Amino acid sequence: MEKLGVAVLGATGAVGQRFIQLLDNHPWFYVAEVIGSSRSAGQPYGEITNWVLDGSVPDSVANLTVKPLDGEFESQLLFSALPKEAAETREVELADKGHVVCTNAASNRMVEDVPLLLPEANADHIQLIDIQRENRGWKTGAVVANSNCTAMPVVMALAPLRKFGINKMLIVSAQAISGAGYPGVASLDILDNMIPYVSGDEQKLETETLRMLGDYADARVNWLKSTVSASCNRVPVVDGHLVNVSIELAAKPGLDEIIDTWKNFVAPDVVANLPSAPEHPLYYLPQVDRPQTRRDRNAGNGMSTSIGRLRECPILGYKFVALSHNTIRGAAGCSILNAELLAVKGYLEAFQPEVGMSSV
Amino acid sequence: MEKLGVAVLGATGAVGQRFIQLLDNHPWFYVAEVIGSSRSAGQPYGEITNWVLDGSVPDSVANLTVKPLDGEFESQLLFSALPKEAAETREVELADKGHVVCTNAASNRMVEDVPLLLPEANADHIQLIDIQRENRGWKTGAVVANSNCTAMPVVMALAPLRKFGINKMLIVSAQAISGAGYPGVASLDILDNMIPYVSGDEQKLETETLRMLGDYADARVNWLKSTVSASCNRVPVVDGHLVNVSIELAAKPGLDEIIDTWKNFVAPDVVANLPSAPEHPLYYLPQVDRPQTRRDRNAGNGMSTSIGRLRECPILGYKFVALSHNTIRGAAGCSILNAELLAVKGYLEAFQPEVGMSSV
Amino acid sequence: MEKLGVAVLGATGAVGQRFIQLLDNHPWFYVAEVIGSSRSAGQPYGEITNWVLDGSVPDSVANLTVKPLDGEFESQLLFSALPKEAAETREVELADKGHVVCTNAASNRMVEDVPLLLPEANADHIQLIDIQRENRGWKTGAVVANSNCTAMPVVMALAPLRKFGINKMLIVSAQAISGAGYPGVASLDILDNMIPYVSGDEQKLETETLRMLGDYADARVNWLKSTVSASCNRVPVVDGHLVNVSIELAAKPGLDEIIDTWKNFVAPDVVANLPSAPEHPLYYLPQVDRPQTRRDRNAGNGMSTSIGRLRECPILGYKFVALSHNTIRGAAGCSILNAELLAVKGYLEAFQPEVGMSSV
Amino acid sequence: MEKLGVAVLGATGAVGQRFIQLLDNHPWFYVAEVIGSSRSAGQPYGEITNWVLDGSVPDSVANLTVKPLDGEFESQLLFSALPKEAAETREVELADKGHVVCTNAASNRMVEDVPLLLPEANADHIQLIDIQRENRGWKTGAVVANSNCTAMPVVMALAPLRKFGINKMLIVSAQAISGAGYPGVASLDILDNMIPYVSGDEQKLETETLRMLGDYADARVNWLKSTVSASCNRVPVVDGHLVNVSIELAAKPGLDEIIDTWKNFVAPDVVANLPSAPEHPLYYLPQVDRPQTRRDRNAGNGMSTSIGRLRECPILGYKFVALSHNTIRGAAGCSILNAELLAVKGYLEAFQPEVGMSSV
Repeated sequence: MEKLGVAVLGATGAVGQRFIQLLDNHPWFYVAEVIGSSRSAGQPYGEITNWVLDGSVPDSVANLTVKPLDGEFESQLLFSALPKEAAETREVELADKGHVVCTNAASNRMVEDVPLLLPEANADHIQLIDIQRENRGWKTGAVVANSNCTAMPVVMALAPLRKFGINKMLIVSAQAISGAGYPGVASLDILDNMIPYVSGDEQKLETETLRMLGDYADARVNWLKSTVSASCNRVPVVDGHLVNVSIELAAKPGLDEIIDTWKNFVAPDVVANLPSAPEHPLYYLPQVDRPQTRRDRNAGNGMSTSIGRLRECPILGYKFVALSHNTIRGAAGCSILNAELLAVKGYLEAFQPEVGMSSV
Repeated sequence: MEKLGVAVLGATGAVGQRFIQLLDNHPWFYVAEVIGSSRSAGQPYGEITNWVLDGSVPDSVANLTVKPLDGEFESQLLFSALPKEAAETREVELADKGHVVCTNAASNRMVEDVPLLLPEANADHIQLIDIQRENRGWKTGAVVANSNCTAMPVVMALAPLRKFGINKMLIVSAQAISGAGYPGVASLDILDNMIPYVSGDEQKLETETLRMLGDYADARVNWLKSTVSASCNRVPVVDGHLVNVSIELAAKPGLDEIIDTWKNFVAPDVVANLPSAPEHPLYYLPQVDRPQTRRDRNAGNGMSTSIGRLRECPILGYKFVALSHNTIRGAAGCSILNAELLAVKGYLEAFQPEVGMSSV
Repeated sequence: MEKLGVAVLGATGAVGQRFIQLLDNHPWFYVAEVIGSSRSAGQPYGEITNWVLDGSVPDSVANLTVKPLDGEFESQLLFSALPKEAAETREVELADKGHVVCTNAASNRMVEDVPLLLPEANADHIQLIDIQRENRGWKTGAVVANSNCTAMPVVMALAPLRKFGINKMLIVSAQAISGAGYPGVASLDILDNMIPYVSGDEQKLETETLRMLGDYADARVNWLKSTVSASCNRVPVVDGHLVNVSIELAAKPGLDEIIDTWKNFVAPDVVANLPSAPEHPLYYLPQVDRPQTRRDRNAGNGMSTSIGRLRECPILGYKFVALSHNTIRGAAGCSILNAELLAVKGYLEAFQPEVGMSSV
Repeated sequence: MEKLGVAVLGATGAVGQRFIQLLDNHPWFYVAEVIGSSRSAGQPYGEITNWVLDGSVPDSVANLTVKPLDGEFESQLLFSALPKEAAETREVELADKGHVVCTNAASNRMVEDVPLLLPEANADHIQLIDIQRENRGWKTGAVVANSNCTAMPVVMALAPLRKFGINKMLIVSAQAISGAGYPGVASLDILDNMIPYVSGDEQKLETETLRMLGDYADARVNWLKSTVSASCNRVPVVDGHLVNVSIELAAKPGLDEIIDTWKNFVAPDVVANLPSAPEHPLYYLPQVDRPQTRRDRNAGNGMSTSIGRLRECPILGYKFVALSHNTIRGAAGCSILNAELLAVKGYLEAFQPEVGMSSV
């Protein structure tokens, strides 16, 4: 099977770089086009990019010439790491031209016919693409979003608990600096410091979480009926968003029942076999002091969510801690997993993985 | 007026050092005796101590010979930075011998006739000393405790809100490494990391907070009737404990009313004039991203509590952020303020500050 | 004696803020004018400034309206925290109009008739002002520079060793993030990281050091004849530049002789009595592991240099470690000390400190 | 081919854990025995070990029962992460019983018949084993050491430059906290701080470096004739030791010639094909600000050394920066590579890799 060439929009930024890093040696896709700002367009990616991840630009991408965002692209599949403003209209224009846009940008996340997809939690939301294409008269194009990076550990931990009825969730985050992109947080603002504010994230957590945990029915996503209170904080760690969560459940399961639910949680088969799907979407860690940001963020190559410290909350009933890698599971990795799901579901006309194709 | 010589128990540890640093140039007290473990006893303080604070041992203390804990002390006033086990029986023995022990240890905090004193919040609890002396047959001795360092920003922020009726408080802390003493947290455990657990602190927050916010009546402290849920985390900052707090109030004041309550909060006169009392016990910071740990921990020489981000909590009604310096306001500084209050209230037989004595 | 109103150029930046912080409650000067970019001009300083130091804008400055750089200023004494480009011509223009400009900018440091002043080390270089005024036809104006912040600990440590003949100095720095201003170093570039490069600083160290350590004679500064090799590194500390230095001396003093030289070093009387002069310009720390950045940077309110670990270097003869606070001693604090020296030396026509005026 | 069971001495410590992590899925070896202190002996490794690396104890090792150090071991090949005192006599005793001990301990590094082996730099020193066995009457036993972790980047960078004649090397290190083991450096000692001292390391750098770079001839290692001056510093990074190095060379090659020498450097074939040998022992990074600790420490899975910033040193002629991962290349990884070399060279009687066996 030949690999599919894909394009990365916003390729020179921090999330764009993570896309390129994760797509290096991907079994289905390879980076064929890199799209940047007008300032970088026309120059070799390896020269114009200030690579902020570990190591250096993968050889296979270093020599690609950066293309401008307002140009034409050959790849059907586009991964978007565009800033919100740039994404706003351009992503829809590109879908209109037939491209499938898997985006990390916030612009289209709450648009009713755009799936806010987290395959382990809501793979069925992918059906919104049919509605989207019908609504907009698109044959092959689509826009599929992944959520805010801080919502990820919350949704991953709560997805299997929906059966208990989630009435309320109170979330206090501790977010890594990489969540703000590059240059992002000034070092003078965060070394030996903590900032109890992350612009826009509380509002996103209080809405995206409910949309992602909602049901797909009657050609729409019905949001989870639950009340969310989110407080977002920036802490001096490089990668990994950790959340302290208190929840009220309609049913009153025992702590062991919840832990078993997490331990037994598996993704639907169609998801579990995707190349980027982690062997275990969730880990429940028995130690009293885990998950820890540095030590657990790379679980499952950064695609697993680690949970720990489930105990009674005197106010809401239950509380626990959850952690996901914010630029892998919480951004580029999730978008790639979304694209893989689109492929096996037949939404990616340019690429059909073979039956029984083994994962990475 | 001659200054009063005092002793510091546990003088070589991190909190003991903070006592010595804060008592350097204190207008009423000077360090006359330093008490350490049997290992350090008999040696000059300046030589045996691994000074972990900034700078070095104050000259006036460097040459004092460390005394053993089981010896006799000349000072009436003892500041205790003993570890819990050492404090357990020794503090009471020393009070029994006539010493006034102002302690940062946890051992006696919840003993019914020991005041858990935070002068701005519950100066009237000092009357427990009369009960304590009566109960135990002490004439001049006493044990007075200050609380866990993480309870401080919570109690300071909530003390003026008691008039609204505090039904529930949900607290998520982000605690500095200095809260664990020295050597305390291993650097491999906290650099680029966060630990969602601090041994014992959640339980302390859920009890000490209510005792401190309680009423003194009928010769006892009646705990505040409220439900507390605490989640404690260690973050890579040197000093300063920050808390995200959600509260449910019986009355439903407007946000502005609460902010005004904080801004107008002053300590009782008898407290406000003490040398270690900060000019403003509370600061409400209007910026959207404050208080921040490094930038606000030293407000009021580390004795003020900074509050910010009051907003609606969709679940409990109100939420905000508060911050106190954990080894000053949250430990040694509070104990010294407690001792000053004892002095002006006449509980320190060895020392009577002059009327109208100006603060530092 | 009435205080002198002064202006701060580049007042909204990180070094400008440090000027304002250090001038708050200064015994001779007060901030009367704040000068900013055209973007901030016309607005209240307290509102337009993103205060990056601890605490908040001093009340006395918060309400000042920011003036544009191309305007007229009432103050004779100007402190400049301008970026290099802005400083280049404007500082000379302002001196030409009669202002005394004490600048932290690099633009004029190596100009032959501009003193590169570090009062404890080269107070006599101040005589260059006479030459400068003569050369340029100025009556009351002057430009006086302080050096690069990393040169400070080197020059402070080596000034008293000039008597031994300094043939060679090999310097490896570890510089704080605040040295790069604000926003300066991106947190993704420095958290859990070290960058072995600071743009321009190696070249500055290899030249400014020699100029500062030079002799004033025959109306000019004769650079120290010595060879310098500098390697500059950025490390994740907030404040404080630490240098590992190896030196070759013409004389071969014993280690004790050098240590005694440092211990006995005092500034000339005229400098030692200035309000911002530290009681001890140098501390030699006897501990094997000092100076340490966080623990020693605030020695002498950030104006003292701490030295330690003098030992034999198998290659150059001697090696040691030195540390100065980079934004106090290494920038704003040094400029203020320079201005104080100008005042007592009569170069500041608008202000004559009283004879015998006591220091702060 | 069946894998060889090996034992790890000092298995519960930080370096012991790194051995176990690196040996997980090793193509030739598997961990069959874990040896700990008497306190941990008799208990399951997974329970008694406070795992300080990322993730958790590999499943294959978690259930092994920890054996006491004074017991008997079945494995011929022992990896030692013992503390120096424990290593001192025990390693020789075990070699005397026929075990091959590949040790990271310092005790035997400078013993004349013990190879201080760094395969890419001095594979021929392995012949000392023949001398060692002859001297001590051992048939199958041996002790083989790897060097201090800070010497690694120095030796790796200088090995190919020996042809130019290395007269002098002046080294200033910036060492990661993991170099001190666990609990090692207290967080209060290193957060927002730098310590200009690492106990014992300067002396080790000034000797081990010369021994490793020496020639094997006439049944002995003749140390490199060169003068070394080392200054060691601890900085707040998790992993990765970075060195600023100035050197004087007898020949006067151009900078390009040195860079080419590094770029063309390859390990001897027998080393290059070992499973743990990195594809590139050295990387020369062209960027002006590299290598950086966090971004480059994992090059070649932590086994490559990254070099950058070669430029003229006004004093010694040349200077550059080098970086190695201290617990992989600088400790456990090097010991494992040493053992692999022993295997292919026939010194490991229990295990003969097949001819043409492919690397990992």
